[in-house]
Amino acid sequence: MFRGRTRRESVGDAASPPPYTASEAGAPGIETKKKKKKNTRKVFFGRIIHSKSLKEVEILHRASLGIDDKGTILFVDSSVASAAEACAKHAGFAHAETVTLGPMQFLFPGLIDTHMHAPQYPNMALGMEGDLKEWCENWTDPMEASYADTAKAHRVYREMVQRELENGSTTVAYNSSIHPDATNVLADTCLEFGQRAVIGKLCILVGSTHGNWEASAAQSLADEAKVVRHIRQIDPAGELVMPCIQPRAGSYVPPELMAGLGELYSRESNSGANNPVRVQAHMCETPLEVANMHALHAGFESYADMYDHYGLFGPRTILAHCIHLTERDMQVMAARKVGVAHNANSNTCLTDGWCRVRELLDRGIKVGLGTDCSAGYSISILNSMRQASNVSRHLTIHTGDPGWKLGFDELVYLATMGGAEVCALDHKVGNFQVGKAFDALLVDVGLDDNINTNGFEHDDMALLKKWVFMGDDRSIRKVFVGGRLVAGKDLKGVTKGVSLP
Amino acid sequence: MFRGRTRRESVGDAASPPPYTASEAGAPGIETKKKKKKNTRKVFFGRIIHSKSLKEVEILHRASLGIDDKGTILFVDSSVASAAEACAKHAGFAHAETVTLGPMQFLFPGLIDTHMHAPQYPNMALGMEGDLKEWCENWTDPMEASYADTAKAHRVYREMVQRELENGSTTVAYNSSIHPDATNVLADTCLEFGQRAVIGKLCILVGSTHGNWEASAAQSLADEAKVVRHIRQIDPAGELVMPCIQPRAGSYVPPELMAGLGELYSRESNSGANNPVRVQAHMCETPLEVANMHALHAGFESYADMYDHYGLFGPRTILAHCIHLTERDMQVMAARKVGVAHNANSNTCLTDGWCRVRELLDRGIKVGLGTDCSAGYSISILNSMRQASNVSRHLTIHTGDPGWKLGFDELVYLATMGGAEVCALDHKVGNFQVGKAFDALLVDVGLDDNINTNGFEHDDMALLKKWVFMGDDRSIRKVFVGGRLVAGKDLKGVTKGVSLP
Repeated sequence: MFRGRTRRESVGDAASPPPYTASEAGAPGIETKKKKKKNTRKVFFGRIIHSKSLKEVEILHRASLGIDDKGTILFVDSSVASAAEACAKHAGFAHAETVTLGPMQFLFPGLIDTHMHAPQYPNMALGMEGDLKEWCENWTDPMEASYADTAKAHRVYREMVQRELENGSTTVAYNSSIHPDATNVLADTCLEFGQRAVIGKLCILVGSTHGNWEASAAQSLADEAKVVRHIRQIDPAGELVMPCIQPRAGSYVPPELMAGLGELYSRESNSGANNPVRVQAHMCETPLEVANMHALHAGFESYADMYDHYGLFGPRTILAHCIHLTERDMQVMAARKVGVAHNANSNTCLTDGWCRVRELLDRGIKVGLGTDCSAGYSISILNSMRQASNVSRHLTIHTGDPGWKLGFDELVYLATMGGAEVCALDHKVGNFQVGKAFDALLVDVGLDDNINTNGFEHDDMALLKKWVFMGDDRSIRKVFVGGRLVAGKDLKGVTKGVSLP
Repeated sequence: MFRGRTRRESVGDAASPPPYTASEAGAPGIETKKKKKKNTRKVFFGRIIHSKSLKEVEILHRASLGIDDKGTILFVDSSVASAAEACAKHAGFAHAETVTLGPMQFLFPGLIDTHMHAPQYPNMALGMEGDLKEWCENWTDPMEASYADTAKAHRVYREMVQRELENGSTTVAYNSSIHPDATNVLADTCLEFGQRAVIGKLCILVGSTHGNWEASAAQSLADEAKVVRHIRQIDPAGELVMPCIQPRAGSYVPPELMAGLGELYSRESNSGANNPVRVQAHMCETPLEVANMHALHAGFESYADMYDHYGLFGPRTILAHCIHLTERDMQVMAARKVGVAHNANSNTCLTDGWCRVRELLDRGIKVGLGTDCSAGYSISILNSMRQASNVSRHLTIHTGDPGWKLGFDELVYLATMGGAEVCALDHKVGNFQVGKAFDALLVDVGLDDNINTNGFEHDDMALLKKWVFMGDDRSIRKVFVGGRLVAGKDLKGVTKGVSLP
């Protein structure tokens, strides 16, 4: 059973961000139940855009989409001419609520952020002078260590989750800090605000600074198990929040702890619980980090072999970065069906290197996009799409081979379906397939922002491209997760201009 | 005499962009004269931020800045504790209007865009599949050719100039199309809306497609002279709009026309007119373009030698791109004191290559930032700063040398003072030096956007960095050019939150 609450439906002073105060942190939302009507089936009618495959964005210029009262998509129908006609045609939708989109609006799948460091959120845009090592020592470690104060998690995560949703990230794979209590606050917050999330507690024993490590392997394992238990308690079926095991990286987790985490993953995977556990870790971000891993874990042929040896590689494993991969790494990754979180923005900011996305895709390795804040400076997956495009072009500049360039349809796929695959949620979200949950954005490119649509009002693909490259959260009027309205400018009540019916 | 009009001070429905209709194009603004008071001297008090040098951003935490009724800065004083105290201390300011900034606000110099293709504005975010050649043939040439219809210039340029100003670009060096009438509309529009601009008509005889070339060298020269005359007629002292000669690039302008443009530049430079002419051209964008230049202009040692030979190189020359430079190019550029418009975003989108900004700066060559829309997909110089940072980091990834990275203070300089130098306007704008025109932004990082300032409210540099990396036009409450309020959220009347006194 899903036991979350909706976030508050309106905000008194929308211009003021929620303050980081303890009193705010406990402010209750409004129960969903009182909003429920007899029949909450809904039919949307208008422009519907999503990925059919890595190479094909499907644009239905005038189509209808129907969801049941649990937010499951029951039909996508491009043969009807209105919402009313769709309601009449599809059994059980006679009394459904209808939403007819305006001429500059479209439905788009919720964006999926496959890698985001929740505790680093306050540091965003700061400290980009050095490389990964300097970044960790000067910015990441002290900031993450500060979440020993659980009240800080309450203060920060409420604002962060709200901003993530407003930016259209309906699913996020979060890294947390080493603190189980702060991590549980993150899980509670995602559930309360209605965001789909993969969450674990970071495990660190060595290689960190500013006290940002755990007392022992036993402590680390017990704390991770505590987080898994908590998440399964608040969301037993994993409708929204899913637990994961988080070895920070091979260079931070010595063999005894890595072995313990592998055992924990295996045990929790086979526990019969409905909410299956995932793995999220970093891999091959910089040559130095790779060397440090090999120094700590002697004798492995590759970084991938190390994780695989400890039983942490499988179709529910999310690996951030994967830049400095060897041939062997990629073979093991493909064989185990792990997924890659590509963080183009942070990889550039920290001069980590270029992830070879084209090669990963060609080898059948799953790839999604991540923001990796705060090494990346934007929480928007739209920005991740632009930066992924840019990094692919830098590979073309570097090699002279235009084959590295990611096409627009591929960027759309990576931001939605690719992310769903990486999070092992492609059976549930990522596009508008019948039977999936309605995780969706109602985008409006006719509002007061930087998007210039004049002359392209009837060109569906141009409207989509203009939103992806020029747009931001201002264009996102409604954000749905599992059919529930959880964010968007309409919810905030600050949008001017065309109103939805 | 400046004869422009202010743009309308409020907009009925701020959410609707101005439609591309001919009737809208002729809508008159409001005369400034009726707004004039006896004493329009102003004093601002609060956080003031600007570049002192390439290596130093100066932040005055609590300072006052006074401007006279012509918008000239008369003092910057950090020794007073309030606007009232500043008024009492500085002669002639007893009755000045005062503006006290809020705790999350700061004054920042107007952003300077050293390279923007006005007629390409509608194409933004579209057509990034190919390289420069394909881009020109499929997108640029047909779009630019369409401005033979001058009504189109009326329709597009009004929206574009308004958006540029809202994004904080107080000075822009515009490329136009080959059409003198459309170009004159651009000049009229900048003057009407109050934007500082360098404007010329593009000269093309060969190398283009879709009829996007001129009938003859004589026609091209006559048309360029017509634009120069028009700009000097509407703004004789060059208070806002300045004429420039625009050979598109060496590969588009054969010797006879290049020679004619050199003569025109020399003649107009020595005409004694108060509004001096500038040169704006493209140089060394791709290896193919460089080869085409050499094929058209046989016998020159370098691209720079060619322009220099025809008398087009000097301290008022703006050169876009400058990626594939030879040693000889850079020697000639440094000797002639030309400036470079660095277009990191478009260079990446078209896989042109990486401009070696660090090397240019080390050689004493002036560098500013450009948006180069629509090959670049953002009109915001904030985005240009981020992309310039990124490109410098890609050079570090490519070479392994961290020396290529541009520091934050350098990015601020390039976006303001560097741009002023490239446009030969550093005596007039670029920072808050006494005697310069007050081209400024009133930035507010405490509004409803993606900027998370919680915990950094008292850290001036953090607030600045968060705006530059996470912010957008939403944070720009007021845009001043020459002391005149020309744009910003306050002017649009859509800002919620903290009000200015």
